[in-house]
Amino acid sequence: MQKIDVRKKILSANEEYALRNNRFLAEHKILCLNMISSPGSGKTTILTRTINELKGKIKIGVIEGDIQTDIDARRIKATGAPAIQINTNGACHLSAAQVNNALTKLPIKKLNLIFIENVGNLVCPSAFELGEDYKVVVLSVPEGDDKPAKYPAIFAKSKVLLINKIDLLNAGVQIDFDVERVKVDVRKLNKTIQIFPISAKAGDGMTTWYQWLIKSVKNTKID
Amino acid sequence: MQKIDVRKKILSANEEYALRNNRFLAEHKILCLNMISSPGSGKTTILTRTINELKGKIKIGVIEGDIQTDIDARRIKATGAPAIQINTNGACHLSAAQVNNALTKLPIKKLNLIFIENVGNLVCPSAFELGEDYKVVVLSVPEGDDKPAKYPAIFAKSKVLLINKIDLLNAGVQIDFDVERVKVDVRKLNKTIQIFPISAKAGDGMTTWYQWLIKSVKNTKID
Repeated sequence: MQKIDVRKKILSANEEYALRNNRFLAEHKILCLNMISSPGSGKTTILTRTINELKGKIKIGVIEGDIQTDIDARRIKATGAPAIQINTNGACHLSAAQVNNALTKLPIKKLNLIFIENVGNLVCPSAFELGEDYKVVVLSVPEGDDKPAKYPAIFAKSKVLLINKIDLLNAGVQIDFDVERVKVDVRKLNKTIQIFPISAKAGDGMTTWYQWLIKSVKNTKID
Repeated sequence: MQKIDVRKKILSANEEYALRNNRFLAEHKILCLNMISSPGSGKTTILTRTINELKGKIKIGVIEGDIQTDIDARRIKATGAPAIQINTNGACHLSAAQVNNALTKLPIKKLNLIFIENVGNLVCPSAFELGEDYKVVVLSVPEGDDKPAKYPAIFAKSKVLLINKIDLLNAGVQIDFDVERVKVDVRKLNKTIQIFPISAKAGDGMTTWYQWLIKSVKNTKID
């Protein structure tokens, strides 16, 4: 009878690729962040502003995940940063194999930080590791403050929560969003998460996010 | 050798349940609408306002799909309408079997219209028939006007598009949303879709939506 070593964890194909991506990124001392949110919460706008404002400080590349179109990759390329578009053609999340392929197309030696902008979906992407160092979840004010309770997985797994579009809180429109309620609900799921309220359009709160990025890139270089 | 009739379409378990639900609803002359959108586009607010304003005209019941919590079912029940909560516990869409079970718990003989509020997700729910007559997709203004191009499937399959939160268009905040662009992009995917720009909070445009509902319920009774 053949003996099987059951202590060895059997990795799925996705986990194998994720591990490979993670090792590759670590070898090149690149910080990799997997950005996850609903459609339209502002991921691409956060990225274009971040790239523009951190020029000369951090060298950023982007892997763009979308079901269809290259709208987002074109927005990123307009900043001058390298961007690789992945079209999932209907699939609701990026896979580590797709990211593995995209990594071969980026100018790796010229980068300190790679953002992966996942498909707009608050549910499925949280279940698929891509090899990133950290997940960053974006929740925008018009989505409502009940979302961490209703979609807990991604808030539990993320290192950073960006609460975007905070300029709408004082715009004189009816919005059900209490920043303190979100902080309390999210910290019940995740004690160590960093929470940055921002407006990527108006610029509010972005400095704290940039400081976190600069510090995290520096730590990746030292590790 | 056994003969197999390959002309007969083999239905998946989900399709079997969807067909069963559809027949059951037709027998009871109930219109059933499957509401699909990203998290936070305003599905529950649309439903509560619609239920309140159509009291005495249409008898409405709701099946609420959420990953976690019964926040939405409680909001519906506060209107006096019957609501059944389904928690998918992580799954990214409702299944027809879950809806089949929920239908046994609603006071069917007292209803003309059942709304199914799907899990907040613009991708996965579009691929799973629940036995509804029509899909209704909700896109809210802060999500941005590029969403039909980026997430085409649900816009291609829906009978109605509700463009929600149009009060934000004139709120003096920076919003990238051109209603005409959305109409053009959506009609490229779906020539017969009905498009109603609304604000479920402020009340704008709701009358046209109510008229469509009243007419569609009437047609269901006659069929």
